[in-house]
Amino acid sequence: MTNKVVFDLKGYLTDKKAIVDKALRKYFPQPEGPAADVIEAMRYSLFAGGKRLRPILCMAGAEAVEGSAIDVLPVACSLELIHTYSLIHDDLPAMDDDALRRGKPTNHKVFGEAIALLAGDGLLTEAFHLLADEELAARIPPHVILKVIRMIAGAAGYGGMVGGQAVDIQWEGKTADFSVVEYIHTHKTGAMITASVTSGAILAGGYGWQLQDITNYGEKIGLAFQIADDILDIEGDSIAMGKTAGADKQKEKTTYPAVLGLEKSRKAQSELVKSAIHSLKKFDRGAEPLRQLAQYIIERNK
Amino acid sequence: MTNKVVFDLKGYLTDKKAIVDKALRKYFPQPEGPAADVIEAMRYSLFAGGKRLRPILCMAGAEAVEGSAIDVLPVACSLELIHTYSLIHDDLPAMDDDALRRGKPTNHKVFGEAIALLAGDGLLTEAFHLLADEELAARIPPHVILKVIRMIAGAAGYGGMVGGQAVDIQWEGKTADFSVVEYIHTHKTGAMITASVTSGAILAGGYGWQLQDITNYGEKIGLAFQIADDILDIEGDSIAMGKTAGADKQKEKTTYPAVLGLEKSRKAQSELVKSAIHSLKKFDRGAEPLRQLAQYIIERNK
Repeated sequence: MTNKVVFDLKGYLTDKKAIVDKALRKYFPQPEGPAADVIEAMRYSLFAGGKRLRPILCMAGAEAVEGSAIDVLPVACSLELIHTYSLIHDDLPAMDDDALRRGKPTNHKVFGEAIALLAGDGLLTEAFHLLADEELAARIPPHVILKVIRMIAGAAGYGGMVGGQAVDIQWEGKTADFSVVEYIHTHKTGAMITASVTSGAILAGGYGWQLQDITNYGEKIGLAFQIADDILDIEGDSIAMGKTAGADKQKEKTTYPAVLGLEKSRKAQSELVKSAIHSLKKFDRGAEPLRQLAQYIIERNK
Repeated sequence: MTNKVVFDLKGYLTDKKAIVDKALRKYFPQPEGPAADVIEAMRYSLFAGGKRLRPILCMAGAEAVEGSAIDVLPVACSLELIHTYSLIHDDLPAMDDDALRRGKPTNHKVFGEAIALLAGDGLLTEAFHLLADEELAARIPPHVILKVIRMIAGAAGYGGMVGGQAVDIQWEGKTADFSVVEYIHTHKTGAMITASVTSGAILAGGYGWQLQDITNYGEKIGLAFQIADDILDIEGDSIAMGKTAGADKQKEKTTYPAVLGLEKSRKAQSELVKSAIHSLKKFDRGAEPLRQLAQYIIERNK
């Protein structure tokens, strides 16, 4: 249990984001050669101002079990590549058909649909290239890395994010019950958020109850994060968010507020955050970033 | 050197294809649950009658260095998942906009563009899930598997297949010189064919000159394969191919025949096959499948 910990979340987020940005720029230098355009398209979305929440959760997961954030950096970056690919594909006309993301034109608006599609494919593929990184394998036992690849691929694939997005699209404009919205949220967003924090803890040598508690934490904040997104879509400011507010309602998306109403959704999100923090009760101050990140996730304005 | 080897390629291809099909059906059983549609879409293209050439090359690569084809089966299957995803995305309206593939309506014609896009994403992701397979890691040293993941992701990503497809799309309707068509062919098709045969050899414990010679073989047949595809598009039969002949010309694709003419393309392909077989001169009869596959690649009618 922690008490009187003075922890500066804002500084923590700034520091960690800088580390991730620097690493991503190293992995994606200015492109050359015939395929420069698709690489430029990958970079465009990768450096469009993301919060780097998933990489930060991965590093904070490592720190919670007394591990090193730097040691897990390639994995942290791979999570951002997967997140970025999912946004590019999600914005395509065949999916959500969005024109604006993080205050900038979406990838296909700038590079055309074909290159945007391939940029997404390239980012997803590069994520696994990075997960099999040689330097990483020199620091962390290869069988542990394989376990993490299995976990991340499971969370990103048809049993996780891809499955959640498919159900999300299929239920647009239809009246869903609570079990559908819960499926969508835990799969579309929750699975990768859980994998982010848990992968960091696994790589840093976390074991038994530690991994169970951190997974539990991840599941709670993953769901809270998506509910917060749904609420932001209703109450948020388009300029702060960098995307059009009210899009969910216009597209008749299956969201928490649509199914439960705003008040109950707010209550659910608060309880999830409380429960997430409670999951970490056996951890010492190393888990302080995770505790504060849980609160941050529902208080952000974008 | 081999002489008087009686080797039945047709029987070999039938046997190996059956092994791959059975494994793929095990990995992709009948879907259940809310995401059943996207899984069904993945299965639709996966079981649409592919030749399973890349998995067979992977298994033949293992056998060439006295390894076991069955030991590398999850990797062989992952190569087919990547190949299938690339076909689904390639057929989308934003890319080649094809209505027919292997004699059947393309994925998006059956499931819609959104689900087809996600089915491709799901197959690509699942490929890496399979590469990190627990059973595989029990048979083959994890650091060797990581090396293979690195190689396959490199061949599938922006420095390989994705890069080749991007350049292919960008040069449609333009007059390209030979260096561009070579870039497209070696990246769009060659990289993954080379990775297929080389990954099998690496996993089976191939070393030094063996891996060099097999990589060399893979590069030659990879290029020959794409030239054969280009020629088939001109001379082939739509029904046998299961797709519309003449599509390349109509789309003004950058192909070997378009740049070099038919006669020189045919000559190039024959020389590549001869050179590929020559690359295997130090191998014994274990490499006989690879030798005969080289010839098969340019003689197939689909």
